[in-house]
Amino acid sequence: MNIAEAILKYLKETGVDCIFGIPAGIIGPIYDALIDVDMKPIITKNEAGAAYMAARYASTSGKLAVCAGAGAVGVANMMNGIADAMRAKAPLLVITGYVNRWQIGKGAIQEMDAQHIVRPITKYSNTVMNEAEVMAELDKAVRIALTPPFGPVHISVPIDVQRMEAPPSLPAAPDPALLQRIPFDPAELDRAAALLNEAEHGLIMVGRGGRAAAEEIMRLSERLQWPIITTPSAKGIIPADFPLNLGNYGFSSTDAAFEYVNASPASCLLILGTSLGEASTCNFNEALVAGRKVIHIDRDGKEPGKVFKTDAAVVADLQDAVPYLLRQAQPAPGAFKKPLPLNEPYELNHTGLSLRLFLEKLSKVMPRDTRYVCDIGEFTNFVLKYLEVPAGGDFEINLNYGAMGSAMAGGPGLYLADSSRPVAVIAGDGSFFMNGSEVLTAKEYKLPITYIIINNAMLSYVERGQKFLYNRTMPDYKQERISIADMMRTAGIRTMSVDRLEDMDEIPGFVREMAGPCLIEVNTDGSEPAPILDRLKALKK
Amino acid sequence: MNIAEAILKYLKETGVDCIFGIPAGIIGPIYDALIDVDMKPIITKNEAGAAYMAARYASTSGKLAVCAGAGAVGVANMMNGIADAMRAKAPLLVITGYVNRWQIGKGAIQEMDAQHIVRPITKYSNTVMNEAEVMAELDKAVRIALTPPFGPVHISVPIDVQRMEAPPSLPAAPDPALLQRIPFDPAELDRAAALLNEAEHGLIMVGRGGRAAAEEIMRLSERLQWPIITTPSAKGIIPADFPLNLGNYGFSSTDAAFEYVNASPASCLLILGTSLGEASTCNFNEALVAGRKVIHIDRDGKEPGKVFKTDAAVVADLQDAVPYLLRQAQPAPGAFKKPLPLNEPYELNHTGLSLRLFLEKLSKVMPRDTRYVCDIGEFTNFVLKYLEVPAGGDFEINLNYGAMGSAMAGGPGLYLADSSRPVAVIAGDGSFFMNGSEVLTAKEYKLPITYIIINNAMLSYVERGQKFLYNRTMPDYKQERISIADMMRTAGIRTMSVDRLEDMDEIPGFVREMAGPCLIEVNTDGSEPAPILDRLKALKK
Repeated sequence: MNIAEAILKYLKETGVDCIFGIPAGIIGPIYDALIDVDMKPIITKNEAGAAYMAARYASTSGKLAVCAGAGAVGVANMMNGIADAMRAKAPLLVITGYVNRWQIGKGAIQEMDAQHIVRPITKYSNTVMNEAEVMAELDKAVRIALTPPFGPVHISVPIDVQRMEAPPSLPAAPDPALLQRIPFDPAELDRAAALLNEAEHGLIMVGRGGRAAAEEIMRLSERLQWPIITTPSAKGIIPADFPLNLGNYGFSSTDAAFEYVNASPASCLLILGTSLGEASTCNFNEALVAGRKVIHIDRDGKEPGKVFKTDAAVVADLQDAVPYLLRQAQPAPGAFKKPLPLNEPYELNHTGLSLRLFLEKLSKVMPRDTRYVCDIGEFTNFVLKYLEVPAGGDFEINLNYGAMGSAMAGGPGLYLADSSRPVAVIAGDGSFFMNGSEVLTAKEYKLPITYIIINNAMLSYVERGQKFLYNRTMPDYKQERISIADMMRTAGIRTMSVDRLEDMDEIPGFVREMAGPCLIEVNTDGSEPAPILDRLKALKK
Repeated sequence: MNIAEAILKYLKETGVDCIFGIPAGIIGPIYDALIDVDMKPIITKNEAGAAYMAARYASTSGKLAVCAGAGAVGVANMMNGIADAMRAKAPLLVITGYVNRWQIGKGAIQEMDAQHIVRPITKYSNTVMNEAEVMAELDKAVRIALTPPFGPVHISVPIDVQRMEAPPSLPAAPDPALLQRIPFDPAELDRAAALLNEAEHGLIMVGRGGRAAAEEIMRLSERLQWPIITTPSAKGIIPADFPLNLGNYGFSSTDAAFEYVNASPASCLLILGTSLGEASTCNFNEALVAGRKVIHIDRDGKEPGKVFKTDAAVVADLQDAVPYLLRQAQPAPGAFKKPLPLNEPYELNHTGLSLRLFLEKLSKVMPRDTRYVCDIGEFTNFVLKYLEVPAGGDFEINLNYGAMGSAMAGGPGLYLADSSRPVAVIAGDGSFFMNGSEVLTAKEYKLPITYIIINNAMLSYVERGQKFLYNRTMPDYKQERISIADMMRTAGIRTMSVDRLEDMDEIPGFVREMAGPCLIEVNTDGSEPAPILDRLKALKK
């Protein structure tokens, strides 16, 4: 057994079932050994797609995702996906091949120092020159990736080392449950509980870390009769119809969430599982915490207190902490009355199809349990504010890193991590032209992803942003309209177009039986003003 | 005038006429200021395309190319183009925006440490936090980029700094000619000349650095009657019909070049302007130098002696050194007889269209002065060995870095640097699906690029490589055939298909009048064995 095979064998023991990437000379032995360990490669069109897929696979499931590629061109294409995983705290292992050791420094084809390039966006990065150290280094890296806060790690192995005989015994595969056990301090939780019980009115803010404790969080919300706001990354964790869910706060807040944060009697804020980034705080706006007692619970000890002063900072797993609080919380005397609808009524202030109305209708025509994967662009503002995710469904976005094009591959990543529920990607024409060929990867692997492409034939975020900030813009941000549906149909993808709201009535039939990806092009003229003021004001500050 | 505008004003003085990239919030002020200085943005579909364009723009012209993008997602997409410029020794400035200074470390949207990520692939990389230092840092970086050996540099500027008032006076624009003056040691050149005159038979190896001295190199070759071999990067510098040109050596050598290196009486090798990388030396094979006196002249002092022991190592500009040698060289007594044709005759050993025969015919149907930009894939081997570049034409490839997909944007880069001659990109289906949307960038800017796409519906380099090296392969490397011509026609690109050699007779008419890009799809079944043994053997070593 050579080292390449030993690496894969160890990963298989750890629960890895597929490898994302594109083979190339210096990573050849790893790809060849896939046959021996019976592991599936997902060959993407660009390594950027491989890394985005792996990032979403890992971020949605908490399982280790693995990318493999050449240590030069491959990993350089993967940079955004790796950085995405870093910001999403997703466990990702990147394995790269390096040139033969004897070639180093001479000018080999594709020689590049991958180790140092990815170091700032990984928890660990190393090149293993000594064949005796490969397996121990791999084991170390995997354990680092799977220890909270999760994150990407990188191991580079010269091709001649990959081909050498492996040591007779492999390290034992790590037990993720063990690595992820977080002891908590009951005294700090007691203090948090006391603050909860002291406050007459309060507010619960749920971040992405709340995913695994959603049920308990809703019980706590009901007990206290404190409404919930969710960060953009936590959209979908609390169903839209939960009676205390005020919806998205931060980047494109719902009107109800914004109102409650800025003008409510809530005197205590319970923050659960979020890093309180720019996207979740309206650009670090103190309005969220001003005049309130603040409790922040997160399993990453660096988060509580990093952005806002806290009155109780608890490092704990929410699956431990929330039930603990639930046991101590006093039932509220009165009942919270959720304002409905969450947003001001629609007013026609544009030409063409309304993206808002499209999104408000979308979850009514898609399968209820659809998991949406949202890309980055002006449409993101509409999605965060207006798309409702019903119970059973879910939502994925990495707005903290905000890489345009990421969802084109992110959708397949989500599906590969869990194929039990449908996956729909929401992206713009900009995202499509950036990484859209990954639709064809989904085609080759017969992944039933629904791509919903909002086509307004421009980089509208740039166009509108430059106008808002600088009172002028350039013609270069608009493009001649290209029918993405026609293009993709020519490539063998089943497509349909939405030009009017009524066209949406065909969606249920269109997505009913899927033998591979399909694409719904949504044509707007981009004239509908987006709820983007928060972000633009942040850039002005 | 704010700092963003001052940066552009300085660059304009330095001769920069366009900026490659995609705008985003944190680089917004730079893009806005383009209006004030009347500089053209080239907005690509993916920042990867912007960097590849800039790399080829700079490598073909020696002029400073500039990319601008967000310091997070933008520069991460640019990594391969920057690394390409590093290996091509091309002067490239990357300007990235960084988040507001007050946001750093808190979790701003797209916050990422660009400075350290690009450091290993740049000559200089810095983040300028102090507004008073921006212009001096920029000037320093530009001077480093334009000092031989050229290379990429990176400056990151927080968005709040970009918006601040600029200092009243800007640094003086550098004089590239001054920066690039390389003093040489006549004694070392005299020693080289003596070695030339001592040898009865010899061989001249020309690398990319020979481009500006091509005429003088041919005169020297004629005087000595020493034949010339060119490295892959130098293909096109010496016309195919020059009577002493034996063609490509290294990666996919012509049979004549291989024969002459391995079995000729040449007792002296004159190496001009190459780093002697893996691609130029048949994987550092000593056959090139064994039993020969070696003279290596390069303007990069790190190159002579790095790979092979030299008898004369000269650091000089070839425009100085070659005329100097020419003056001292004794005319040869006999005449060199070039074997023709350079390659063994074609034998039918495959099904479908022959890529070899297609390439041998290509330069006869394309305009004579076409500059070819070659991408990376199995077809590259055929191109290097069989494509003939006539006088007046040219050829660009960066095989040292070898990034697949790079030419899709490289073609437009070449054209933007010099629009006086036609540009044709030769790429594979793998390259197309990796970065093919840049064809649409060419469309938007009405760049008359001819895209020649060799479609064999597989990653044939991987397929064949794995079979050769490991005696087995996987179905994942082959794809269902997609007609790229049909897809691109739907997107508004003029296309034609070549399925038989006779179809090529339509090419002259097809490329005659171009108002934008066109695409020629060349359908092969991938069964023709490629001359790839050198590369595969290198991976086995």
